[in-house]
Amino acid sequence: MVGMSRVKPLSGFPEWSPSERVVEASILATLREVFSLHGFAEIETRAVEPVERLAGDSDAAKEIYALSRLNEEEKADARLGLHFDLTVPFARYVEEFAPHLAFPFRRYQIQKVWRGERPQVGRYREFYQADIDIVGRDVLPSHLEAEVAIVMARALAALPVPKATMHINNRRLVEGFYRSVGIEDVAGALRSVDKLDKIGPDGVRAELAGKGVSDTAQDAVLELAKIHSSDSSFVSAIEDLWTTTFTTGDSDAEKLFADGVAELAALVNAVNAAVPGTAVADLRIARGLDYYTGAVYETFLDGHEDLGSICSGGRYDSLVAGGGFPGVGMSIGVSRLVSRVLSAGLATATRAVPSAVLVAVTDEDSRPASDRIADALRERGIPTEVAPSAAKFGKQIQHAERRGIPFVWFPDAGEVKDIRSGAQEPADPATWNPPAEDRRPRIVSS
Amino acid sequence: MVGMSRVKPLSGFPEWSPSERVVEASILATLREVFSLHGFAEIETRAVEPVERLAGDSDAAKEIYALSRLNEEEKADARLGLHFDLTVPFARYVEEFAPHLAFPFRRYQIQKVWRGERPQVGRYREFYQADIDIVGRDVLPSHLEAEVAIVMARALAALPVPKATMHINNRRLVEGFYRSVGIEDVAGALRSVDKLDKIGPDGVRAELAGKGVSDTAQDAVLELAKIHSSDSSFVSAIEDLWTTTFTTGDSDAEKLFADGVAELAALVNAVNAAVPGTAVADLRIARGLDYYTGAVYETFLDGHEDLGSICSGGRYDSLVAGGGFPGVGMSIGVSRLVSRVLSAGLATATRAVPSAVLVAVTDEDSRPASDRIADALRERGIPTEVAPSAAKFGKQIQHAERRGIPFVWFPDAGEVKDIRSGAQEPADPATWNPPAEDRRPRIVSS
Repeated sequence: MVGMSRVKPLSGFPEWSPSERVVEASILATLREVFSLHGFAEIETRAVEPVERLAGDSDAAKEIYALSRLNEEEKADARLGLHFDLTVPFARYVEEFAPHLAFPFRRYQIQKVWRGERPQVGRYREFYQADIDIVGRDVLPSHLEAEVAIVMARALAALPVPKATMHINNRRLVEGFYRSVGIEDVAGALRSVDKLDKIGPDGVRAELAGKGVSDTAQDAVLELAKIHSSDSSFVSAIEDLWTTTFTTGDSDAEKLFADGVAELAALVNAVNAAVPGTAVADLRIARGLDYYTGAVYETFLDGHEDLGSICSGGRYDSLVAGGGFPGVGMSIGVSRLVSRVLSAGLATATRAVPSAVLVAVTDEDSRPASDRIADALRERGIPTEVAPSAAKFGKQIQHAERRGIPFVWFPDAGEVKDIRSGAQEPADPATWNPPAEDRRPRIVSS
Repeated sequence: MVGMSRVKPLSGFPEWSPSERVVEASILATLREVFSLHGFAEIETRAVEPVERLAGDSDAAKEIYALSRLNEEEKADARLGLHFDLTVPFARYVEEFAPHLAFPFRRYQIQKVWRGERPQVGRYREFYQADIDIVGRDVLPSHLEAEVAIVMARALAALPVPKATMHINNRRLVEGFYRSVGIEDVAGALRSVDKLDKIGPDGVRAELAGKGVSDTAQDAVLELAKIHSSDSSFVSAIEDLWTTTFTTGDSDAEKLFADGVAELAALVNAVNAAVPGTAVADLRIARGLDYYTGAVYETFLDGHEDLGSICSGGRYDSLVAGGGFPGVGMSIGVSRLVSRVLSAGLATATRAVPSAVLVAVTDEDSRPASDRIADALRERGIPTEVAPSAAKFGKQIQHAERRGIPFVWFPDAGEVKDIRSGAQEPADPATWNPPAEDRRPRIVSS
C-alpha cells in the first residue's frame, strides 16, 4: 500500500516490539498512578511551539527540529518547532490557562520530546519524558521542594529498577558561597562546575581561571564540590570549609549561604524521613540551567550510574517571564530508563498480547458459537480472541502458543486447556476465570 | 524562565484544560480497554518517517510537515517528516518487525498525527488517531472484516456519544459493476463518486464525463450510489439495477460484482447480529484511497453527521509493497470526536484533579501528621493531597473547593468533611473510603 524500499531503523528513534511495549506501557502506567495518588492532574500540550520561544536558551537552539510544510516555504516568523522538553510548553500553558487553574497547580505530563542531537549511544532524538511540577501564584512554600522529590522517589521505587539515589544541592547555598569567595559570574562558574565529571578538576580550574576566578576561589569551589552526606552532617563539613576560606564579608551573600545550608539540611532530612535512604546532600550538583533558584536534584540508579541522571529538576522563582509563578519540578527521562530495563533484562512481559484465551473454532459454520463464548469472557473483563481459521485443533493450539496466549477454549467439549501445563478442565464461559496473574499481561522483574 | 511574549493558541493545535483532559483521557482509556479485550496488542511507532516514504501518495505530500535542524540544512535525501496517519508507519513497522510477529497480527495504535492543512473549522493540524488493524501473512479470512467493524462499533458504543451508524460498501462489488458498465479507470471514477456530497450528482457527472465515462455508465454509477439498506434487502435493489443496465458481458467483472454483493450482504448481517442497528450497506461509500480491495467503512454519529465520518477504513490486499500482508483496519479521529463531546457538552468531568481528599494542616509543625494521614489514604488507592499552607481552616476548605476536591480531612479532630453537603464525620485513615463515585475523577454524560 505504500512504496517500499529497504526498511531500516532510524538511529535515535527507538521503537519497541509488542512485548517490549508492554514493559514501557506498564512503566508509564505506574508513573501515572503514583502521580495521581499525590494529586497531580494530567495535562498534554501540543508538540509544537513557535521557534523563537523554543530558542530562548541559545544552547538548546541547535537541537531544535523546525517544521516546514513540504513544497511550501512558510514565513520565518511563523515557524514552528518540536518541543525539546516539557517545561517550555508547560510555562506557556500556565500563562495561557492561568485564569482557569487553581494554584498551587500540580500537574504531571508524559509526552514525547524531540532533540536533533547527533545520534550516539544512549542519546535519543525522540523520547518520552515524565514531568511533575507544582507551581504557585506569587508564593511557593519550601516544603513542596521535599514533596516533588518524595513523589519522584516513590515513583522510581515502584518501577522495576534498582534503588535510586537522589543527589540534592541548593542554589542559594552555592550562590552565597560563590559570591562570598569573590566570584561575580556565578552562572558561568556553575556551568563550569557542572562539567566536573567530564573535564575533571583541572579542566574546571582552567575554565574558572578563564572566567576571572582567583586561585583561592577555585580551591574553595572545588573543595565545596567534594562535600556530600546522606544526612545533615554535611553542615559541619561546610562550616569547616567556611572557616578556612577567605571570604569577602558580603553580608547578603553570607545570609544567602546560611539560608541555603539550612534549607538543604531540612530538605534532605524530609526526603529521607519519607523514603529512607533516598537523598544525599551533594554539593557538586550544579545543573547547567540558569533558572534554578533553590533545590536542584539529580538521580542515579545504583549499578547504572553510567546512565547519568535519570530524574532531574529544581526550584525556580518564576515559570514565566515577568515573575509571579514560582515552582518546583522534576523530570524523568523515561525512554532511556525503559531502554536500560529492556537491555539489562531488569523486567520482561509475561506475554506480548492482551488475550488470556483463544477460543477454538470447530468449523466455520459454528464460528458464531465461538464468538459467543469470547463475548461472555470479555463481558467479565477477560481479554479473548477467536481462532482465525477452523484448522485442526493442533494447529489452533500452535497458533495460541506462537501468540503467547495461555488458554485455549474448546466450544464443543466445553473445556479449557492451559497449554503450558496441558491441564484441561470443563468450564462455563459465564463463570470461569483464569488465575489472576494470567488475566492481563504483566511485567516481571528478573 | 522562558522569554515570553504574548501567548495565544495556535490554530489547528487543540489543547485541553485539566478537566477537559479528564474527558479525553477517559475516552482514550475506554478505547484501549475495548481493543485489549478483543486481543489487540498496543504498539507505538516513532513520529517521523523518511519524507519519500510519506510522500508516496501525492495527494498527501503537500500536507506533510518536514523537519530540519535549526541552523543546519540536512541533505534532502535524509529528510524526515511527521507521520500524517498511523497506516504508513504501521506498514513500515510490520515490515521491520515481521520476523517477531505472530500472524494474523492484531494491533491497536493511539498516537498523535500531524497534517499541515490550511486551518479551518473542525480541521486539526495535530490530532489523536486510534487505529486497529488485523494483518495476515498471505491470507486473511473475510470474517475478520466483520470483526474490526464489530470491535469499532463496540468501542464507539462505550463512549459518551450518540449512536454511531456504520456505512459499508465493498470494493469488489463496485469495481465489478464499474467494469461491467465499461468504465476503465475505476480508481479515477471512485475518486469522483467520493465527492458526491461536496459537488453533487451534476458535478460527479461532469468529472466522470471528463474521464471518458459514457452517459449511460454515469447513470448506472449514480443509480448504484443511491442504494442502501440496513439488511440484505439492498441485494434485490442491486439486482433490479443490474437487469436494467447495459453491461459489457465481461465475465471476470461479473464474478467480481457477484462475489462483492455476497460479501457485503454477509458482512452487514454479521455486524448487525453482533451490534444490532449498527451497519448499513451503502453503495455510495467510495473512500478516495486506492489501496482498498474489499470492505470499506465510514461511520457517522446520529445528529452529528456534520462531523463527517469519525471512523473509517477498509480491507486491503497488502500492507506493504510486494504483497503478502493482506489486512483490514479502521481508524477513529479521536480529537475531532473529543472536541465535539466537549463543545456539545455530551460529557463533563466530575472534577479536574485526581485528589478525592485534601488533608488540612493545623500548623506547619504538625505537617508531618497530615502527611501521614495522606500516605495512609494513598496506600489504599485514594488520591490525596495535603494543604499547601496552614491557613485558617476556612481558607483551606476554600482551596479544596477551588480545586474541586470533595473531601477535607481534619487531623486534630480526626474527622472528614464532605464540603459539598457539609456533612462531617469521625474517620480513620486506615479504613475510611469515599463513595466509589468520588474516588477518582469520572466523566458523566449529560
